[in-house]
Amino acid sequence: MHKKIIVIGGSAAGPKAAAKARRVDEFAEISLFQKGEDLSMASCGYPYFVGGFFDDRNQLLCTPTGVVRDPNFYWNAKGIVAKVNTEVTKIDSVHKRVEFVDLKTGSQGVQDYDKLIIATGATANMPPVPGTELEGICTLQSMQDADYLRKIKDEGKVKKAVVIGGGLIGIETLEALHLAGIELTMIELLPQLLTFLDWEMAKLVENYLKQKANVITQNGVAEFLGENGKLTGVKLQNGIEIPCEQAVVAIGVKPNVKLAREAGIKIGDLGGICVDEFMQTSIKDIYAVGDCCEIKNIITGKNVLAPYGDLANLEGRVAGENAMIGNKISFPGTIQTGICKLFDYGIGITGLSEAKAQEAGFNYVKVMNASSDKPGFMGGRIIGNKIIGR
Amino acid sequence: MHKKIIVIGGSAAGPKAAAKARRVDEFAEISLFQKGEDLSMASCGYPYFVGGFFDDRNQLLCTPTGVVRDPNFYWNAKGIVAKVNTEVTKIDSVHKRVEFVDLKTGSQGVQDYDKLIIATGATANMPPVPGTELEGICTLQSMQDADYLRKIKDEGKVKKAVVIGGGLIGIETLEALHLAGIELTMIELLPQLLTFLDWEMAKLVENYLKQKANVITQNGVAEFLGENGKLTGVKLQNGIEIPCEQAVVAIGVKPNVKLAREAGIKIGDLGGICVDEFMQTSIKDIYAVGDCCEIKNIITGKNVLAPYGDLANLEGRVAGENAMIGNKISFPGTIQTGICKLFDYGIGITGLSEAKAQEAGFNYVKVMNASSDKPGFMGGRIIGNKIIGR
Repeated sequence: MHKKIIVIGGSAAGPKAAAKARRVDEFAEISLFQKGEDLSMASCGYPYFVGGFFDDRNQLLCTPTGVVRDPNFYWNAKGIVAKVNTEVTKIDSVHKRVEFVDLKTGSQGVQDYDKLIIATGATANMPPVPGTELEGICTLQSMQDADYLRKIKDEGKVKKAVVIGGGLIGIETLEALHLAGIELTMIELLPQLLTFLDWEMAKLVENYLKQKANVITQNGVAEFLGENGKLTGVKLQNGIEIPCEQAVVAIGVKPNVKLAREAGIKIGDLGGICVDEFMQTSIKDIYAVGDCCEIKNIITGKNVLAPYGDLANLEGRVAGENAMIGNKISFPGTIQTGICKLFDYGIGITGLSEAKAQEAGFNYVKVMNASSDKPGFMGGRIIGNKIIGR
Repeated sequence: MHKKIIVIGGSAAGPKAAAKARRVDEFAEISLFQKGEDLSMASCGYPYFVGGFFDDRNQLLCTPTGVVRDPNFYWNAKGIVAKVNTEVTKIDSVHKRVEFVDLKTGSQGVQDYDKLIIATGATANMPPVPGTELEGICTLQSMQDADYLRKIKDEGKVKKAVVIGGGLIGIETLEALHLAGIELTMIELLPQLLTFLDWEMAKLVENYLKQKANVITQNGVAEFLGENGKLTGVKLQNGIEIPCEQAVVAIGVKPNVKLAREAGIKIGDLGGICVDEFMQTSIKDIYAVGDCCEIKNIITGKNVLAPYGDLANLEGRVAGENAMIGNKISFPGTIQTGICKLFDYGIGITGLSEAKAQEAGFNYVKVMNASSDKPGFMGGRIIGNKIIGR
């Protein structure tokens, strides 16, 4: 009997797990369930598609050699059955099977597994304020969001937009919409943008950003304002109203753990699925990978939510291999490297910020400097650096 | 009494040593002797000046804020007396003084030191064949070489050139002259280019290079051919003659150790000045830094010649500080990182190649792959990677 593997989720971690499982066992029966239409979306690229760095959306879905990763690709190239537009509705860990529904036809089914890998991802948060149902409010989390915002760029009708949230996605979205010629305001609830950076580094980003957009910190959205069902502005907590035709919400994501929780799998304090070093959940033969999980920060030893594509891919490979060969490969955790492009600058961090080092109770030393990112003769510019060491 | 520091050599390592010495002791009397006209030349940038990436030669000599690092700069900004066009002719370690001659006036002098730092660099090799005296043969080691080759690019008279040596400098020079529209042939004595790479990686470079130039391996120069004192071609060891008006020789460098040797300082088997972890030579109070030294490869524990600017700068800082505060700071050695740009590709290595790992007797594992240097949608291209691990 060949092993039966089911993977739930077809974005980054899921397909990697499935492909790795295939690589270590050529006979296994591997199925991938994907709720949406697309597979293996390079979601990190959405802002660049919106901003017009490239025009063909399929570039977000294809291999380096240009083949779109659709169900045909998965079957022909990898022998993986990928079922798109198909939602898994229940995990039955006692009988080791999942129940699913075809979202187009409504037909239901049940499928057995020997090993199950959950990669259900995360969902973008929405502020709990009136008006979120208005037309003209979106996130940038799905291919459909990317298509929608790209259309806005191409049509050129939107003149003013608000980006809510000054994190990575907010910053990248702001660049994309700025390139589309839209007048922009960024709203951040906290006193600084990019909270993974220390405040003085975040201020460098904020000062630069202010050359491109209005930036308002320490202020949140109180209400989305509209007329005839369409967004006309955003009202802030301090009463100010900012007129706009479009708002993009980028205030973080929440792990999708409903399926796992209903199956009795342990959920952590941060709201993500708990996994061990082998990416196995609290239930044997069920693994979880990607944005739906909590993972360990290697430096502090504490769990974190780290919804990044690079980690999702690594975790997927680890779970895919362990599902086939028994739990032999460990995922060590993360040092939470994060990078982002902001026009002609790069912003990045690896390891702990000073604030995080303090919070973790480390004795540390720090050094800051301003130095050239390249030799002057090659077009170098002064950038700020900060290093925290023990 | 303030400490007297003399630094011999004003390219990379010497000025760094002098500047670091100043930073740790504001009262020391620090002198820098430089045989040539220029100071602190960014010699890594010569090929890019030649190739026309920028037009102002002073960009190779200036600070990130655009101030040329001439003797005035050194005096005003750092309180360092920099004597250019001044050759140190003797080190007298018994009386702790150096003898020098002003190359413009011929006047001689003697100066005392408490600590001496030798940064005499290296000299480009010439093949021991007839014809090297012909006009139209150069290296790319000095500002004058860079000026000369840039003039050739700007004048546009040279139609054919030969680059002798397929190492880093040869490759970069080839790119520069190709951008100048010159028809090029590269000659390499060994079976592969870039011998710090394993042969199969070097072949990737060679195959790409062949789109831009003729590449001849396993063949050396037998003779430079000329008429009326001017180069007309290069005759190879297999008898082939390649017509050209210009040849650039880039077959490595040899440490300049004459001064040190005559002073009784120990010279290593590889021909470089021997230093300990503090960058001190075999004679107390005399340090040596940069291309004139042998340093330790951290991985093999063996000495190597590693004439790279990044190491020169690090070594300079270590020696400069130790000269002032006693031997407290160590230079750990090198893992011999080397990188180079080749048109729109990058070539790099860090640590040991497979050949070097074999030579050192390590048990190792290796993996090679071909993968995208960036996501496809951001213009990624397939590049080759090889990793050697223990």
